[in-house]
Amino acid sequence: MLEQFKKHLDKFIKVSDDEFTDITGYFEPQTLKKKENLLTEGQICKASYFVLDGIIRKFFINEKGVQQTTEFAIENWWMTETFSYINQTPTEFYIQAVQPTEILVIRQNAFNDLMENHPVMEKYFRMVYQKAYAAAQMRVKMLYEHSREELYRQFLKNQPAFLQRVPQYLIASYLGFTPEYLSEIRKKNFS
Amino acid sequence: MLEQFKKHLDKFIKVSDDEFTDITGYFEPQTLKKKENLLTEGQICKASYFVLDGIIRKFFINEKGVQQTTEFAIENWWMTETFSYINQTPTEFYIQAVQPTEILVIRQNAFNDLMENHPVMEKYFRMVYQKAYAAAQMRVKMLYEHSREELYRQFLKNQPAFLQRVPQYLIASYLGFTPEYLSEIRKKNFS
Repeated sequence: MLEQFKKHLDKFIKVSDDEFTDITGYFEPQTLKKKENLLTEGQICKASYFVLDGIIRKFFINEKGVQQTTEFAIENWWMTETFSYINQTPTEFYIQAVQPTEILVIRQNAFNDLMENHPVMEKYFRMVYQKAYAAAQMRVKMLYEHSREELYRQFLKNQPAFLQRVPQYLIASYLGFTPEYLSEIRKKNFS
Repeated sequence: MLEQFKKHLDKFIKVSDDEFTDITGYFEPQTLKKKENLLTEGQICKASYFVLDGIIRKFFINEKGVQQTTEFAIENWWMTETFSYINQTPTEFYIQAVQPTEILVIRQNAFNDLMENHPVMEKYFRMVYQKAYAAAQMRVKMLYEHSREELYRQFLKNQPAFLQRVPQYLIASYLGFTPEYLSEIRKKNFS
């Protein structure tokens, strides 16, 4: 598992085996059951999560009481609720395992110590957040530009592997429509 | 002008006067006329922009041929088209001055050299991107959660100073409705 994290880091920065061993000391492995929550509305987010195996998602509960998924993270992706994390304010989001999932957790204090003691990790997280911001920027554009149905077609085109792994009702939740509507669109697209 | 940038940096990192002098060598000041473009659709984004004075915005042209504003940057904010910048692919966005604007430009090569020679700037940009990502995450949530009219009320509540500085037609463009519709909502809100 840690080998996988090393391979991932190697894509961004150069870290010797000794330094990597030290770096891993800042992380804790955690195993999540399906639907287990890492964060619930009202809590203050005090950690970041790196997915080793499985899928986690971020969602909020909208005015109608419906779960609206805004983000997924699969292997080698990070997830945290950055707004709550930075400002130390109660979150409006949930972070939850979609299926049994293995993650690495880094708590905020450990993160700050890691930055202090291994500045090379600043470069790594600068690039991680740069990529996350780039994706979010394109997400905002898509939400402005496309109808819900077009969003589904885009998703189908850009993320086919994802679609096969995530249950239909969560895809619907991500795209902002009911499972019934998704089912209708799917019939239309495949007929 | 550079004093302002130093004050801004001081909020994030510790940089001596000597190091700051060296850091500024990686940036170029630039003066923009109203509606001057820094980036146009189809170009590859090769720089990041820091606003010293004025306002710039990011927009794309939607299927109906209408400018859809997705982001503004005022004093002490950064702007770039991160997706194009990272992937070196043609951008779908424009970056344009809303009014006469003073900026600092850092080109991609200079940026990479700066990270190499002044690792403390990795920390700074890690925090800048972390904040940008946090804002984008909340933006995605707002776009899912609120009707256009509610978005305007939120904007009015959270960004009153902004509303006074940006022309009405650009606020409309940011919120995704016509200037006429904005005018109607304003009448309703102030009556």
